[in-house]
Formats: sequence, C-alpha cells, structure tokens
Amino acid sequence: MHIDIISTVPELLESPLSHSIMQRAKDKGLLTVNVHDLRPYGLGKHNSVDDYQFGGGAGMVMRCEPLAALIDELKSRRTYDEIIYLTPDGERFAQRRANRLSLQNNLLMICGHYKGIDERIREEYVTLELSIGDYVLSGGELAAAVVVDSIGRLLPGVIGDETSALTDTFQDDLLAPPVYTRPAEWRGREVPAILLSGNTGAIEEWREERALERTEERRPDLLG
Amino acid sequence: MHIDIISTVPELLESPLSHSIMQRAKDKGLLTVNVHDLRPYGLGKHNSVDDYQFGGGAGMVMRCEPLAALIDELKSRRTYDEIIYLTPDGERFAQRRANRLSLQNNLLMICGHYKGIDERIREEYVTLELSIGDYVLSGGELAAAVVVDSIGRLLPGVIGDETSALTDTFQDDLLAPPVYTRPAEWRGREVPAILLSGNTGAIEEWREERALERTEERRPDLLG
Repeated sequence: MHIDIISTVPELLESPLSHSIMQRAKDKGLLTVNVHDLRPYGLGKHNSVDDYQFGGGAGMVMRCEPLAALIDELKSRRTYDEIIYLTPDGERFAQRRANRLSLQNNLLMICGHYKGIDERIREEYVTLELSIGDYVLSGGELAAAVVVDSIGRLLPGVIGDETSALTDTFQDDLLAPPVYTRPAEWRGREVPAILLSGNTGAIEEWREERALERTEERRPDLLG
Repeated sequence: MHIDIISTVPELLESPLSHSIMQRAKDKGLLTVNVHDLRPYGLGKHNSVDDYQFGGGAGMVMRCEPLAALIDELKSRRTYDEIIYLTPDGERFAQRRANRLSLQNNLLMICGHYKGIDERIREEYVTLELSIGDYVLSGGELAAAVVVDSIGRLLPGVIGDETSALTDTFQDDLLAPPVYTRPAEWRGREVPAILLSGNTGAIEEWREERALERTEERRPDLLG
C-alpha cells in the first residue's frame, strides 16, 4: 500500500510514521508513506497557503490553488483509490472503514489547518471525508496519523501474530474483555481463577460474557 | 497546565508535541508535557514490561509492577486531577470532555500497547478511561497526542484568535458551515454570493442554515 499525505506541517508527522508498527510495515515493504509539504506550492513571495474567509469571521481558510497544484501533480503520477480529507464534519472513522481501506492500494490524504480548506477543493477532488472523533484538533495531521496507523496494522504481515488483530475490540462489535498477566496476585488483587484453570472452553465463555457485559455497560449503542 | 505521559515508545510522541500549536503553548508557558519512558521500570535484565496473558490467546499484556512503580513515583511529585488510560473501550472522547479537561491543572496519561494493560492497574489507579474513536491503534500514543492537542488548543492564549475555537464544529453541537476564501471564482466554481454581500446579518443566517443542513444530512445524531 502507498499513502501520500499533504500537510503544511510535515515535520509533525515525522516521529509517528517512523517508529513502532509503522516502521515495521515500511521495513517489510508493506507500506510506504510520503508526506508532501504544501508550503512550496503557496502563492506570492511568502508562499501563502491560506487567506481570510469570505463573509468575515475568525480563522483562516486554506486556498484552492496551492492544494490543487499539489493534488494535480500527485494525481499525474498515481491513481488513487480514495482522496481523503480529514475533517470533523466527515464520516465518523471506525473499524469497518479501516478494514476496507486496508484493502486499497493508493490513498491520498489532505490535512487541513485553521478553519479548514476551501469548500471547492472538497467538491473538486475529495472522494471521502473522515472524522476520527467528535472533537477539534489544531490540524489534520494527527487525524491522518491515526488513520494510517489503524490501517497499517491491518496489512497482512505487519503485526506479528495475525490472530491478534482479529480479537481486537470492535472487530465483532464488542469491547474486549479484561486482560491479565503475571503475577497471579498483585497488591491483594487476584486474577480471576477461571483464567488459571486451563479449561479453554470455559475461558472462552468467560471472555465472551465479560465482553458482552462491558459492552452493555459502557457502549450499549454498539449492540444496536 | 501540566501533562505527564507514560509510554513504552516515547520517541513516537516527539514530533507531534514539538510543532505547531503544541510548541506555541509550551513557548508561552501555558502547557508543559513530559513523556516518561516505561522501559527503565521493566523487570529483569531485559527490562520486560509485558507478558503473555492469563488464559491464553494472542497478544501481550502490560504488567502491573513497572506501571505501578512509575505511576507511584509521579504521584509522589504531583497531585493529578485525572489519571487517564487511553483505551478503545473507554468513554468516547468528545469536545465537552476536552473543554472540561482544559480547566484542569495536572493530568497523567497512560499509553497501552499490545492487548492493553493488566486490568488491576485500571482498578488501582485510573480515574478516567478515554477512547478517541471506535477503531484500534497500535498503541495509546497517538490517542494521547490527540487528547493533548484538543485540550492544548483550548487553553486561553494558545491560539491567536480566541473567538476561533468557539465557532468550531461541536462547540454548539452543529457541524461547521462550508468556508471559502479568495479567489471568488475558481475553475468555474463561485463562492456563494451572500458571502460577498457585506450583509453580516444575512451571512450569519446563511451560515446557521448551512450548519444545520449539514448536520441533519451527515450527523443527525448530534441534533438529538
């Protein structure tokens, strides 16, 4: 898979994309991510990429021309399965969408800043608008990093034990059950005896019950 | 505000916390963020911080003792308003929670990895469990960065124009209306004439209508 990201603060994405699972995916040749600086495409001697919004009001808006120039250049080199704009008013990003995106070959992501990008760029180019949650960030970069991470770990071969991703929270619309490791007793708190029983059938049943219980308690909406 | 973050991959957080708005918040002395490496608190000669989960199954679990040692050390130096564990089965993080957290003085965040942390650490220390969305990440670091960014930008003085954050999506349970900047016509696409009218009352009304319309279309759940 190849992902291109357009940003005015490419430095911000350096460390999230070069450690841990992302680095492993890159080392194995399973994922390449290029972050493209929008600044050189800015207008005038200050390489301006934003301007005041029409109609007045606080907050700058990212202009059409620099974005269009960079997007056109990238599109001339590659055919994208999706051109994604990270925005709080987009579709709420969730595991199902991550699963689906992990099957694609080429993605382009646009990170907004300030009040966002000019609406006309959304109309002209964007095929998918994603929000990682109901909160506002200072820019789209962290949202892009989140989407890349959640997709990247699903690529076959990226995480060591393939069965691990399948038992994650959300893959079956249930929250995960509680997990424990050694020691069996810690500060007077004991691991549930069933987990030490060796009875795999009973353990599986216990985990399913806990998962359902936790989902009912914390996220009844997932049970629809 | 001061935020401590516990991580096994502290390098991952370097660039998100040292650019753009986060750097500005730090430069102005409005926010300090310290990332603490859990590794030196690991057990044995390999400084192990995780182990197999009781009951079997794929995925490692972060052990109690290293986390407890570091948390106890940090708690001896500071009183935390909240000890937050970033986890997909936590409360769904949203703008209201960001607003509330931005009024606190000291926060401690714990980033999990693999299958998560031993349940007993959650029972013993954690006062707030937050999920940034219904998807799984390779670790809690990006989730912590998202929460820090969303809180940090709300601290008075961090973003230039204070009224900007108040008109963001979600502050009034509505998505933001579309935004436009120069040029007034681009590739045959024109900015809505009302925005060029100078009639601030009519512009305000148009924006409210568009915000409501967009929310009804994309996120009717927000209108409750």
